Amino acid sequence: MDVIWYTAMSMDGRIAAPGDDLAFLETIGVGSAPPEDEFNEFLAGIDAVLIGGSTLRWLVAHGHGWPHGDLPTWLLSRDAQLRIAVGEVERPIHQREGDVRAVLEEMEAAGHERVWLCGGGDVAGQLLAIDRIDEVIATIAPTALGAGPALFDAPDLPPDLRFTLEEVRRYAEHAARLVWRRARDGGE
Amino acid sequence: MDVIWYTAMSMDGRIAAPGDDLAFLETIGVGSAPPEDEFNEFLAGIDAVLIGGSTLRWLVAHGHGWPHGDLPTWLLSRDAQLRIAVGEVERPIHQREGDVRAVLEEMEAAGHERVWLCGGGDVAGQLLAIDRIDEVIATIAPTALGAGPALFDAPDLPPDLRFTLEEVRRYAEHAARLVWRRARDGGE
Repeated sequence: MDVIWYTAMSMDGRIAAPGDDLAFLETIGVGSAPPEDEFNEFLAGIDAVLIGGSTLRWLVAHGHGWPHGDLPTWLLSRDAQLRIAVGEVERPIHQREGDVRAVLEEMEAAGHERVWLCGGGDVAGQLLAIDRIDEVIATIAPTALGAGPALFDAPDLPPDLRFTLEEVRRYAEHAARLVWRRARDGGE
Repeated sequence: MDVIWYTAMSMDGRIAAPGDDLAFLETIGVGSAPPEDEFNEFLAGIDAVLIGGSTLRWLVAHGHGWPHGDLPTWLLSRDAQLRIAVGEVERPIHQREGDVRAVLEEMEAAGHERVWLCGGGDVAGQLLAIDRIDEVIATIAPTALGAGPALFDAPDLPPDLRFTLEEVRRYAEHAARLVWRRARDGGE
């Protein structure tokens, strides 16, 4: 099962400004959302979503609810109120807490093969620390934040976490799109 | 006078691992150094260098001394021993401490037009905070560090620090090269 960390970051590798502020996304150009057809193409290749509490809380607070309620969704959060705040969704959200390994096992057991890590940095760091990030799709916005959570915040990573660069190109007006794939000797 | 921040960083925007560890540069491929002709082309367009204490200290500790002693060099550091540790260089190194603004004024008064900020992150953050970074040339290595100083660590940046993306391409084996130029309305 592959886990894909699809996100946007600033020039200096931040996925948000302090206080979960995502205003920097506007600097990507052509609105803050990815081009619809490209994003739909990505979504078409995904069969489940893993999301952290902060990201879902941000979506709810900004009136988006959970926009991908049609996809089997696992929420990693201790916040019992959060699922209630989301409101009605097409499929039940599986809320779990604790070790992310157990969540991945459950997703794998459910037959999912391509999981979108929708956010946030906390979960990404936990996954990278156990070498369970398989792909990173990052849009780099043309602005610097100077502070805020990074693409990966994980103090004790295993050594030699190399990736291969699968794609590098201009994206929207002044953003860049980079796609990395984890390079594992001899497969997983 | 333009200031160019030319550096390398990890996927997650770190310019070093904790402890000023630059081992990640090896993941760029084809050695840790930039292709010689390309780097020489960059150097040919530079007429002075600004360097911070930590970066120069790293170079000296690793036996490189100051490899660009032929370029007029300003060192921003309080460490009185550092210039002595560097040893003999072609031109005297101008060591200064305190406000980076005064250093820039001095460099500008000396007639320099294109300054290479050779490192490190501390100085880059100070310069960005006063909006004196004009260009960023960053090589993104295909590895994650999870911790360490970022391309910019500066808690109180002015708002709306937008750049334009001038170049985006693959570099060496699995690195990416991005060049950004500060977008200022109506010029400097």
